[in-house]
Amino acid sequence: MSPRPSQPPEQAEAKKFAIIQATLDAIVAKGPAAVRLGDVAKAVGMSIGTVQYYFASRDELLAQAFSFHTATVLLHLEEMSKPGDDPRGRMARYRLHDAFAAVHGVGMHEQRSRIWLELVTAARADEGLQNCVDAVFAGWRKLFRTIVDEGLERHEFGLFQLSAAEVVDTFLAIIDGFDLATVAGHGPDPQTMTRILIETADRLLEG
Amino acid sequence: MSPRPSQPPEQAEAKKFAIIQATLDAIVAKGPAAVRLGDVAKAVGMSIGTVQYYFASRDELLAQAFSFHTATVLLHLEEMSKPGDDPRGRMARYRLHDAFAAVHGVGMHEQRSRIWLELVTAARADEGLQNCVDAVFAGWRKLFRTIVDEGLERHEFGLFQLSAAEVVDTFLAIIDGFDLATVAGHGPDPQTMTRILIETADRLLEG
Repeated sequence: MSPRPSQPPEQAEAKKFAIIQATLDAIVAKGPAAVRLGDVAKAVGMSIGTVQYYFASRDELLAQAFSFHTATVLLHLEEMSKPGDDPRGRMARYRLHDAFAAVHGVGMHEQRSRIWLELVTAARADEGLQNCVDAVFAGWRKLFRTIVDEGLERHEFGLFQLSAAEVVDTFLAIIDGFDLATVAGHGPDPQTMTRILIETADRLLEG
Repeated sequence: MSPRPSQPPEQAEAKKFAIIQATLDAIVAKGPAAVRLGDVAKAVGMSIGTVQYYFASRDELLAQAFSFHTATVLLHLEEMSKPGDDPRGRMARYRLHDAFAAVHGVGMHEQRSRIWLELVTAARADEGLQNCVDAVFAGWRKLFRTIVDEGLERHEFGLFQLSAAEVVDTFLAIIDGFDLATVAGHGPDPQTMTRILIETADRLLEG
């Protein structure tokens, strides 16, 4: 925490952002346990001292990187939950389909699935990371639950053996399961994932 | 690799088994990156030298533990794929339901879901572990695919927008997704998971 020559705040933000991106890349490449401040500093062309000026420790850096990633995912989900102003956007069925089609792009990081798995496994003994995990679950649940409830209200959808909450958790399970499959090298392509989600939703919510 | 006083082979096997169980427990408790030979030795009341007699290194021990766990899961899946000799066992629909009900018990370790997530994330740069991951995917796929194909052949099941392989991958995704949710502290109870799998299968395979 040495004193720094004054710099415009946007420059400091840009540096922090670059460090966090490099940290997320390192998490994807090697897992959080193998992330070193020195490697991150090297990747962004800064000294370790500069990295430490923004992030006091390795643990702090990892926590901030996971937290930033979580905020990005939540922003994206928030965006997805706004009804579109095209006519299709008004029908719950198509809003659900649109949401499924957008799943692949959530998180603005091509390896979102790997960061998500690393976050879930690392949250084991870290309350801050567990809060991130809880927030992501809550964000996805809210997105889908809002659309499902709307479709039920308008009698576009019908429930059978499963409650609305259970149908939503089934969507989440399929998304998380394909995230795991993707990390494991057995994932479907994005189009197939979207098709499977749409078909499952149409079948579980037949109106 | 010091010479050992001769001992009956079953005693050596029992010791190896105890060490592997303690290793899996440590993976569940702390993640593979934090597993130490010394802690495992302490947990089973042996010297580090004894542990090293059976497992040359920490990496070797982790590889063998994941490999043993994988073999247990595959044995279980093999067992599940045998048609029962009760009359229900003859109908593909009920064989599928029975398989779903048995999912929770696969692996003989109460924290199978956590070991599975750790294995998938650790396989990143380890060919041996990736082979375990591939074998587990193949085992689950074979189990469900056999039953689905049989039900299709007998016209118990019908396909709609998804192929048989895609329906099977949907089952796997739901199981893996609930594994992830369980590790994340957001998983359903085993009965709910079974009910969701059965309902999804019934809807996706309506005959």
